Amino acid sequence: MRLLTFTLPGESRHRIGALDAKDRVIDLGAESERAGTRLPFDTSSLLSLVESGRAGLNAVRDLLSAVRAGTLDHGAVRMLAPIPRPRKNVMCVGWNYLEHFQEGERIRQSGQELPSHPVFFTKAPTTVNGPYDRVPFDPRVSDKMDWEVELGVIIGKAGKNIAEDLAFDHVFGYTVVNDISARDLQRAHGGQWFKGKSLDGSCPMGPWIATADFLDPNDLRLTCRVNGEIKQDSSTRFMYFRISRLIAELSRGMTLEPGDIISTGTPSGVGFARNPPEYLRAEDVVETEIEGIGCLRNELAAD
Amino acid sequence: MRLLTFTLPGESRHRIGALDAKDRVIDLGAESERAGTRLPFDTSSLLSLVESGRAGLNAVRDLLSAVRAGTLDHGAVRMLAPIPRPRKNVMCVGWNYLEHFQEGERIRQSGQELPSHPVFFTKAPTTVNGPYDRVPFDPRVSDKMDWEVELGVIIGKAGKNIAEDLAFDHVFGYTVVNDISARDLQRAHGGQWFKGKSLDGSCPMGPWIATADFLDPNDLRLTCRVNGEIKQDSSTRFMYFRISRLIAELSRGMTLEPGDIISTGTPSGVGFARNPPEYLRAEDVVETEIEGIGCLRNELAAD
Repeated sequence: MRLLTFTLPGESRHRIGALDAKDRVIDLGAESERAGTRLPFDTSSLLSLVESGRAGLNAVRDLLSAVRAGTLDHGAVRMLAPIPRPRKNVMCVGWNYLEHFQEGERIRQSGQELPSHPVFFTKAPTTVNGPYDRVPFDPRVSDKMDWEVELGVIIGKAGKNIAEDLAFDHVFGYTVVNDISARDLQRAHGGQWFKGKSLDGSCPMGPWIATADFLDPNDLRLTCRVNGEIKQDSSTRFMYFRISRLIAELSRGMTLEPGDIISTGTPSGVGFARNPPEYLRAEDVVETEIEGIGCLRNELAAD
Repeated sequence: MRLLTFTLPGESRHRIGALDAKDRVIDLGAESERAGTRLPFDTSSLLSLVESGRAGLNAVRDLLSAVRAGTLDHGAVRMLAPIPRPRKNVMCVGWNYLEHFQEGERIRQSGQELPSHPVFFTKAPTTVNGPYDRVPFDPRVSDKMDWEVELGVIIGKAGKNIAEDLAFDHVFGYTVVNDISARDLQRAHGGQWFKGKSLDGSCPMGPWIATADFLDPNDLRLTCRVNGEIKQDSSTRFMYFRISRLIAELSRGMTLEPGDIISTGTPSGVGFARNPPEYLRAEDVVETEIEGIGCLRNELAAD
């Protein structure tokens, strides 16, 4: 299943939907009303569906077995991030593709070794942005904005001290994340990355969540294009710490909750490590795409 | 005004209250019902009061001018963190007292200079803990748990790119924070602090919020005692980056929202920098106190 959050033209109310095989949108609230069935979650919130657990997902499956075709054209709705406002910061992983660690180390020359445990940092919920929305660009705040295509994992079931071999029981699904990073701020604040990772709108996400039964996340091509030119092109099979390991490490002593978002790190090809370095500017268009999920397309716009 | 979140014996429903001059609790929901007035916020949520802005605070002031004395004994209620579940991670400041930076540098020997911009990191909302509640201690997760008394600032008014001289317009009030830190995890994850700062229950907070008109935050004694022995004893006047600077820097390109919590850093005297180093163990009792606000008392308990 592919699940999304959207609005209809002229409306501000959020709706949630599923995509049919032809990428047309099935409005879950409208269709359940039409069918006279009551869904066990708030049909304006995909987070509510995630939190409703197996019962919610089963109810959606039942509804979709009756309603197989969407009525709304993909282009006729405005898509938002699948979870437009997470209940906590987006959790991210640094240096999780070996070549990306190495390209950074060529610049840093710090002699740092790849850590034996994953590197975790966060992005504020105010960074979350729609799959086709503009990313604010204000050179007085940062003129070193960089791209990072990443696979996002959505947690479906709460857990603490989750064993690696049970980690996928806790996964609801997957999405595409662009972890836009202000490299100047990332460095200016004593080496902690939160500030440089948390500018408003710097986390485009979507276009939807592919549920865990819909795809195998272990060998998906992920690419990033800037103004049509390929900058990153790799596969999730090159993750240094695998998804199960990330969930196990993150949940050690810390409860993961339904709707938590874990962005799993970016491959090589980011701007700051290029020679000469490249950064985003107003009107640049960044496309971040993951095979089997979809493609985000975000333009940088003067703020 | 001093505002708190509490429950009554045998109830799970959150209530919010104000303390009278004798530290007795005035139940805002019950008193407004008795007076037949309607408050413009949800009386089970201090966050809702904060979000209701000036209107909410004025309504509470009006109510308190009629109801001057509390009916509930301080010890008869269970106090929770004033905001038991923030809408995003708690934002924290590292190395904000010069002597604390220096004591750490003696251990690290990294040759690091004090950064020219504040160091920001976050703690997950699942860390937030009550002022007198137990802190989970699991030596398999971390056996290097350390204390950090800090002044917490609660944001009252949203803002982005806030100028330093307007920063205090955005402050709702102040609270006491114990930024309990797992030093081993803080170091093991590639130098980013999120994981080591985010164990469940590692952010005791409270006992209440002192509103911005109630006290001047610029010269308050802050102390930490472990099993009755003083470990930290300083004053907020020794902050390296002042509160107005922290708000200005944090809000550059990033919207601060009502209910956001900024913990402003800890003075010297933490455990890892002692000779020999000291860490918390099960049954240890940590008291963190700030003059004019109050005192947290938390016992570490085997998890």
